Amino acid sequence: MNQSIPYKIYLEEHEMPRQWYNVRADMTKKPAPILNPQTLQPITEEELSGIFCRELARQELDDHTAYFDIPQEILDFYRMYRPSPLVRAYCLEERLKTPAHIYYKFEGNNTSGSHKLNSAIAQAYYAKKQGLKGVTTETGAGQWGTALSMACAYFELDCQVYMVKCSYEQKPFRREVMRTYGAAVTPSPSMNTAVGRKINEEFPGTTGSLGCAISEAVEAAMSQDGYRYVLGSVLSQVLLHQSIIGLETKTALEKYSIVPDMIIGCAGGGSNVGGLISPFAGEILKGQANYQLIAVEPSSCPTLTRGIYAYDYCDTGKVCPLAKMYTLGSGFIPSASHAGGLRYHGMSSVVSELYDQGLLEARSASQREIFQAAQTFARVEGILPAPESSHAIKVAIDEALKCKETGEKKTIVFGLTGTGYFDMYAYQKYNDGLMEDFAPSQEELEKARANMPQTGK
Amino acid sequence: MNQSIPYKIYLEEHEMPRQWYNVRADMTKKPAPILNPQTLQPITEEELSGIFCRELARQELDDHTAYFDIPQEILDFYRMYRPSPLVRAYCLEERLKTPAHIYYKFEGNNTSGSHKLNSAIAQAYYAKKQGLKGVTTETGAGQWGTALSMACAYFELDCQVYMVKCSYEQKPFRREVMRTYGAAVTPSPSMNTAVGRKINEEFPGTTGSLGCAISEAVEAAMSQDGYRYVLGSVLSQVLLHQSIIGLETKTALEKYSIVPDMIIGCAGGGSNVGGLISPFAGEILKGQANYQLIAVEPSSCPTLTRGIYAYDYCDTGKVCPLAKMYTLGSGFIPSASHAGGLRYHGMSSVVSELYDQGLLEARSASQREIFQAAQTFARVEGILPAPESSHAIKVAIDEALKCKETGEKKTIVFGLTGTGYFDMYAYQKYNDGLMEDFAPSQEELEKARANMPQTGK
Repeated sequence: MNQSIPYKIYLEEHEMPRQWYNVRADMTKKPAPILNPQTLQPITEEELSGIFCRELARQELDDHTAYFDIPQEILDFYRMYRPSPLVRAYCLEERLKTPAHIYYKFEGNNTSGSHKLNSAIAQAYYAKKQGLKGVTTETGAGQWGTALSMACAYFELDCQVYMVKCSYEQKPFRREVMRTYGAAVTPSPSMNTAVGRKINEEFPGTTGSLGCAISEAVEAAMSQDGYRYVLGSVLSQVLLHQSIIGLETKTALEKYSIVPDMIIGCAGGGSNVGGLISPFAGEILKGQANYQLIAVEPSSCPTLTRGIYAYDYCDTGKVCPLAKMYTLGSGFIPSASHAGGLRYHGMSSVVSELYDQGLLEARSASQREIFQAAQTFARVEGILPAPESSHAIKVAIDEALKCKETGEKKTIVFGLTGTGYFDMYAYQKYNDGLMEDFAPSQEELEKARANMPQTGK
Repeated sequence: MNQSIPYKIYLEEHEMPRQWYNVRADMTKKPAPILNPQTLQPITEEELSGIFCRELARQELDDHTAYFDIPQEILDFYRMYRPSPLVRAYCLEERLKTPAHIYYKFEGNNTSGSHKLNSAIAQAYYAKKQGLKGVTTETGAGQWGTALSMACAYFELDCQVYMVKCSYEQKPFRREVMRTYGAAVTPSPSMNTAVGRKINEEFPGTTGSLGCAISEAVEAAMSQDGYRYVLGSVLSQVLLHQSIIGLETKTALEKYSIVPDMIIGCAGGGSNVGGLISPFAGEILKGQANYQLIAVEPSSCPTLTRGIYAYDYCDTGKVCPLAKMYTLGSGFIPSASHAGGLRYHGMSSVVSELYDQGLLEARSASQREIFQAAQTFARVEGILPAPESSHAIKVAIDEALKCKETGEKKTIVFGLTGTGYFDMYAYQKYNDGLMEDFAPSQEELEKARANMPQTGK
């Protein structure tokens, strides 16, 4: 094997980024502002500070500052698990017999098992600094809840997690990791909140959704002194924190003078793909370079590929600000057979706008396809990938096989967001040949969209 | 925080060891030879090659060659997850308010979740090179079985795993990881083998033991053409492969001129602690340095601290060679409440001999103590440790707290062998306050020892 590029490119600690990058600053056409759900006017920092920590509200609304200093306390924590490696997938290349060069940025080497920790620690830090007692949040597949529990344990903050009920039941061990880190975990919809009680009444026996768990967590934060709500994806502040993924990737590539042809990320709410592509999109926006950027989403939750671009509710209870985004409608709930995360009905407004401007492509992949890709990858590269991450693997393999046909020696970079240790129930279904594929019908999509807000914008 | 030593010391790929170290070569008094169970004479390479691959039989019996070249194919695989980081536990030090400096060698950043992969890939490589079709093995907690499945998938070898029944039932997800890597997993005792059928008949409803699963795996290997048996601990060949842990640790420490005062490892069959301490023990044996070396075992399976040093059977079916080792008797089965691994009745003959010569200390720790240590560690250092590894954490914390009392600034190094993602059932018991402590009574120990072989040696 060619040894001139090491298997794993690790940056030195002093090469780690000390600032996050805000791609909005370099966009001529900015993402549309988020709106106050009562007034339908752009929300103010003051209004937003009732839900989020002050500094996070500021970051959310700031679309002109390109770089934010990462506080020293966060850098100290990052050093426990960062820089993450950029891995050359020599063994996968060999197995596929492709002339392409494949690299992946691996974010799974921390106990939360995913990239979510990058933003969790930032959000916990600002909560601590503001003197709060604790934070509330929702979690679906459980990666975000785990990450936040770890971050709160580190800063000795209380952490209350509303976990989508079907996930709470299917993933008892995810729950136990959070409890080990001291978090209180409640299945959602619960009877703890007004919105939870209302949803339970309207839809008896419901197994919950992210949109519903968000409403519960927001209500819980607003009804307790010294608490704020935090969110693991979708928000522009989260993409800002996650830009560390893209920045490290770029530095690592530059260290070995590697110029990527394409950068591929899986997309649910957009935190990973947004963070990964931000610095590369920034270069494109400034006319300094050109890359093919690809977001991959599940066919069962096809927000970019089959959604519409409009203002929508971010949660089922309609208590959150409205965002202009690609959306399937806040009533959309993926099929019960949907495994793993990437199940949110909307998409980060930044990712949505980049997609709308044509800087970013979108593709969708079915469950069986992604588990097949996961298995191929695991058997040669050793790492058992999360189902979410396997969407990116699937398209990376597709592209590498295209290169095999054409003989092109493209350089493919993808984001491997995390590990699948807590997804073995889904792997078991795949191993047993019981994994199902499905995609919402046109009728279902139209129904989910029926109650979109009328903002006139 | 003091930034002169980075959080994680990563060696460059070119600094990775290219040879394994065989500590037996530097021992004046060697470990006693393993014996043919029929003749009670030292077993020959020829005899041993019926069970193990030829090259592994050679490594097993060679107690005079100090260094073995690591084949390039194994180095290539090692580069996918090695070098592993030596981490400075700054956050743990701060939480304990200790003047001690604590480092841990983290072996959990690979999908098998532990150090076991270091030997699994070597054993699979030699099997492949010999042209075998496949290998058989046993697994208890599941780390070894997972590691071997990964290694076999990489070399496209068949892999048959006999998994101790209680573990097979309690850890369905461990089983699924192995299946994802293409292994066939059978709960032991099974009805597939004569020894399994006999044990099932004698002890109806038994949930199995490692000693029994070993017998089944050996029988399965001997009864199929093109198969050999492989083992994840206890053997001297395994310690040889695992010396990579100690060698990397030593190189990383030397890179920053750090001289450790003590090196702590958890001990079950001895693969981790043996590999970790080997190069340090070598220096002591050659009079070049002095370190305090400590093995930590569970109070519920106290092989070193309460066992006897004698020839014993390595398996329940008495088909394996006999080894002189610290042992609780091959009939010993830890309490059903024992969580995690470190449950073997005997101890590596190398580790046993080093202990007998006074180069190595041994301590035991109870379950509640080790889960408490695990929780403390997880909350500040981020990593969710395996219960096995937490034995070393417990003693490292004890020693760091002693330093706090005395004001000594000792340098403590411990081996963090793996992650606890598949041990959440045990964590749940601890979180719920249901974890039990227990230790075998003197009477139980005497009973387990009643059927030791009479070798006259």
